[in-house]
Amino acid sequence: MAEQEVYRASTTAPVNIAVVKYWGKRDTKLNLPTNSSISVTLSQADLRTLTTASCSASYVGGDILVLNGEPSDVSGARTQACFRELRARRAALEAADRSLPKLSTLPLKIVSENNFPTAAGLASSAAGFAALVQAIANLYQLPDSPSELSLVARQGSGSACRSLFGGYVAWRMGDKVDGSDSKADLVAPAEHWTSMRALILVVSAAKKGVSSTSGMQRTVETSGLFKQRIDHVVPANMELMEQAIRDRNFAQFAEVTMRDSNSFHACCADTYPPIFYMNDVSRAAIRAVEAINKQADRTVAAYTFDAGPNCVVYYLEEDAPSVLGAFEPILAGSDGWKKEASAAASSDVKLDESLAAALKEGVSRVIMTGVGEGPLRTDEFLVAADGSTVLR
Amino acid sequence: MAEQEVYRASTTAPVNIAVVKYWGKRDTKLNLPTNSSISVTLSQADLRTLTTASCSASYVGGDILVLNGEPSDVSGARTQACFRELRARRAALEAADRSLPKLSTLPLKIVSENNFPTAAGLASSAAGFAALVQAIANLYQLPDSPSELSLVARQGSGSACRSLFGGYVAWRMGDKVDGSDSKADLVAPAEHWTSMRALILVVSAAKKGVSSTSGMQRTVETSGLFKQRIDHVVPANMELMEQAIRDRNFAQFAEVTMRDSNSFHACCADTYPPIFYMNDVSRAAIRAVEAINKQADRTVAAYTFDAGPNCVVYYLEEDAPSVLGAFEPILAGSDGWKKEASAAASSDVKLDESLAAALKEGVSRVIMTGVGEGPLRTDEFLVAADGSTVLR
Repeated sequence: MAEQEVYRASTTAPVNIAVVKYWGKRDTKLNLPTNSSISVTLSQADLRTLTTASCSASYVGGDILVLNGEPSDVSGARTQACFRELRARRAALEAADRSLPKLSTLPLKIVSENNFPTAAGLASSAAGFAALVQAIANLYQLPDSPSELSLVARQGSGSACRSLFGGYVAWRMGDKVDGSDSKADLVAPAEHWTSMRALILVVSAAKKGVSSTSGMQRTVETSGLFKQRIDHVVPANMELMEQAIRDRNFAQFAEVTMRDSNSFHACCADTYPPIFYMNDVSRAAIRAVEAINKQADRTVAAYTFDAGPNCVVYYLEEDAPSVLGAFEPILAGSDGWKKEASAAASSDVKLDESLAAALKEGVSRVIMTGVGEGPLRTDEFLVAADGSTVLR
Repeated sequence: MAEQEVYRASTTAPVNIAVVKYWGKRDTKLNLPTNSSISVTLSQADLRTLTTASCSASYVGGDILVLNGEPSDVSGARTQACFRELRARRAALEAADRSLPKLSTLPLKIVSENNFPTAAGLASSAAGFAALVQAIANLYQLPDSPSELSLVARQGSGSACRSLFGGYVAWRMGDKVDGSDSKADLVAPAEHWTSMRALILVVSAAKKGVSSTSGMQRTVETSGLFKQRIDHVVPANMELMEQAIRDRNFAQFAEVTMRDSNSFHACCADTYPPIFYMNDVSRAAIRAVEAINKQADRTVAAYTFDAGPNCVVYYLEEDAPSVLGAFEPILAGSDGWKKEASAAASSDVKLDESLAAALKEGVSRVIMTGVGEGPLRTDEFLVAADGSTVLR
């Protein structure tokens, strides 16, 4: 019976790590940012969310969401906004073509899994909401472009809008009150600059810090320095970063990345009460990157930190010996190294003992990855043809 | 013979800890700051420099300076500027009254000692230059007011100008190119608000950070946020702080103190490469102060940090039970506690275990002090009547 049919579609979506940071909302309901931002999309071979969206008349009890094997609340305003927007787009298609099945009226069942441990403390909400939106868009066969879908994903989680694209991605803040121009676009595809690599030093934090959602609004409300970041620092960094990516100028890419990360964490420290995401291990990672660049006598590595102590080190494939060669000997005991790393370990870049000791003690694992593609449709399903959740 | 006479005069001078911070010079030669600042002068019973200035025709080989028993270089531009300015003022007196001995033409011998360990990492240059200038002014019998002498001390070390006064002291940045209006004045004497106390948590740093002299100029040159601090944040904080002191409003005093310290360290973190003076122990001290205020259900303590990891906690005498009572049980093993502290230890303010552990491990000693007087003339001499250094 047609009523019993289970419609389904799957996608994977990537994590992105900003090089010009998003921090601060001008509209908390619509998730409209105080500033534009730019990120690098990371390879889904290493970090990705796989999501299957399905709908069926056989589903009872409303929309459901299963994240990493656990039922998850869908009643939050952000998830509801995504469901509502996507259903409206589907309903418009159905109204225009009466032969289409009325999927917009059916309960949704979304099942999602990350291929990386949640414990790694990587902001998974970007990949998660990007995958959710793309999977439902696939299910509903929406003709919307990634940029149009990014408008929807943005309402789920701001930085999710950047995970609708691969490569080098800008989120334009826009200036319309309804947010209709606050969306992602492509600065350059991954193919433009394929040699970009990222080494993530996963730092164990004693305690979870302030959530980015509440933290960024405290910054907007209390930091005396934040206005300068929004009005002057970020607009200048956006321009320099787009130019650096266009020109594949790593030295400029690196300097803007490091300065913008510093500016963001400075605004956190200027929040009242202050917000500290970095710890002494994070700062040791900064000193290590500075030492590597000094010993290489040019800029071969850039650090950046999101709302947590983990350090993401961007570098180019050709500089792997200098960069991996400095970290690998110290952190050889940590999980996550790939074969290339030990090959590079013959580098003569050496970190001083106190830095090495701080990193060795504080880095719990590493993730080696690089620039990658945007969401990819897949035939791997987390919802079986009969509508049941696939257990893995 | 008159030529052999040794002229001498002594003074003590206090340490001051800013509550609106000095960071950045607009003129490095004249030590002119980018912004005004305010400090509390700390009691010389606990922290002071004792300096004897002497001069004699019997001295040969030029001016000399002995600091804490060690010969010290006097050829630096800053020390030379102080000697030159003070000699010029003495010479003017001598020209006006020919009966005065020509002290301005004689070699100087300055001997200086701190009553606190240099290892404590307290900025001793403020007390040191204030004592040097005041001792020579005493020797030369200069009629200059503390504010006029602060112009000279400023050229030795910027923050030294604030140690020419006791109590609550402002350094007005001034706007003249020659710096003649960049000097200290009294916001309120110690008697105005005698109950102000300071508990200094001395934090052992693995390594000396960037010196404040070079650090502040890197901030001026590279921080994208610094201009906002100078143009807007500090002027507002100056006004609020003067008002708080005038009204003896501790809650306002505390909030401005904490916010201004945060703003200063945020600008350090925004410097490129970033400057970090605080470490994880410093941040634990911030969290401890926040916890104390929360448990007291009002603001009873304020943290502030200079160019190092030490935490200075300001509080009022009447709130000693809440403040000392929270720290003393944890840090009872550290040197520096006075009897009042154990009396207060019955307080029911408790810090959580991870904070307590971080402080216990990282705080090497405490200093208990309070607001105090400016330089005091003394008959204790570090140069004997025969011109020899007094060994102690």
